[in-house]
Amino acid sequence: MSDQMQLVLIRHGESEWNRLNLFTGWTDVDLSDTGRKEAAAGGRELAAEGFDFDLCFTSRLKRAIHTLDIVLDELDRSWLPVVKSWKLNERHYGALQGMNKAETAAVYGDEQVKIWRRSFDVMPPALEAGDERDPHVQAMYRDVPADELPLAECLETTVERAWPYFEETILPEMRAGKRVLIAAHGNSLRALVMRFEHLSPTEILEVNIPTGTPLVYTFDTQMNVLGKRYLGDPAVIAAKIDAVANQGKAH
Amino acid sequence: MSDQMQLVLIRHGESEWNRLNLFTGWTDVDLSDTGRKEAAAGGRELAAEGFDFDLCFTSRLKRAIHTLDIVLDELDRSWLPVVKSWKLNERHYGALQGMNKAETAAVYGDEQVKIWRRSFDVMPPALEAGDERDPHVQAMYRDVPADELPLAECLETTVERAWPYFEETILPEMRAGKRVLIAAHGNSLRALVMRFEHLSPTEILEVNIPTGTPLVYTFDTQMNVLGKRYLGDPAVIAAKIDAVANQGKAH
Repeated sequence: MSDQMQLVLIRHGESEWNRLNLFTGWTDVDLSDTGRKEAAAGGRELAAEGFDFDLCFTSRLKRAIHTLDIVLDELDRSWLPVVKSWKLNERHYGALQGMNKAETAAVYGDEQVKIWRRSFDVMPPALEAGDERDPHVQAMYRDVPADELPLAECLETTVERAWPYFEETILPEMRAGKRVLIAAHGNSLRALVMRFEHLSPTEILEVNIPTGTPLVYTFDTQMNVLGKRYLGDPAVIAAKIDAVANQGKAH
Repeated sequence: MSDQMQLVLIRHGESEWNRLNLFTGWTDVDLSDTGRKEAAAGGRELAAEGFDFDLCFTSRLKRAIHTLDIVLDELDRSWLPVVKSWKLNERHYGALQGMNKAETAAVYGDEQVKIWRRSFDVMPPALEAGDERDPHVQAMYRDVPADELPLAECLETTVERAWPYFEETILPEMRAGKRVLIAAHGNSLRALVMRFEHLSPTEILEVNIPTGTPLVYTFDTQMNVLGKRYLGDPAVIAAKIDAVANQGKAH
């Protein structure tokens, strides 16, 4: 067994709601054509550097699942096992899901919207139980215990469900020698990065993970980070990070 | 728990090698555009009749995996768990894989080719160990015990690996109440149909499963068949069965 473990993360690319400037969260919108191209480019970067994997994880949301499918096609690894868990879903944006930024500001005020988007532990307004956006009434979560499902999440509560999933389900596979690939979302990946790098709430809010760009971590057996790098053209990656940092909308 | 169990089978549609008239077997060729359309049409038939599933199985070959992906997209069920097993792969065509019918007839003679294609238990010529088509040297099967992997298969040996997989892995999920969907290949599905319907070798060779057409079985708890039907337009299905029965090529 090697004394190093490698993990690759990839954030899905543009979805159909990105350009509509809507709060997406757990809304199950698909990738746009641009998002598909971003995923294919990420897959080609992995292939060009000779990456291979044994096991893949993704969320239950199709924009992440399809990103993974496209990456695996590029790697000629469509046959790899894939585990789809809601614990890797995007942050749930509660009652804001489906609203655009202008509507939200009109209802709640600009300052309040800024706080929800830029704070670690302030919850957005919760869905009312039974709302069609409530995961308790959605087929996708029918097998999940009701008391585990949120009506809204802040980044803190996203970390509280994503990190234990990593520790209990993904990390043991890595310790067993499996090369793992995770395709997920801006905030579920932030949850992992925060814990990998022991970042504070203020620090993680400054981290902007570019879309469709493989992020390669190397750890020692104690999960200390030995290396971290993005694959691809540094100028393109920097532009993507800027775009994510400056985008005037929710993820 | 219901006293009935339901299972849906779907055979992948046209692959990129179908029109080239090549023996395909375990060669990992993708669906053609026609094959993708067949899968989407099958998915729409399932959606139109209100079918839903809890668990999906497919082979390790991308033409079956992509068929399943397309069907799940049509059902808005991309988030369902999917198990990919080589035990559901197409029959391995041994040294014939990649040869066209004319070449094969020139090398082995017309009569011999007919026997390989239409017999239950006559093996095609085996691959030599280490051939690039040998699953023992292919990344896709690196986790499979070497003594389980074939160098060629007849329909009989295909049944001998597909049926135990069904009994040991799929059937317990059905008994636990899961609604199962299987996307696979002409001969791995024949293996299941043969055992479901207690057909003789001669009888199963007469069964031609149409491509991209959901085949719905209903069983009692003892696995007696209570019902069997294809979804879709009967005239289209009959034409597809004819096309499969008459095609002058391997699966």
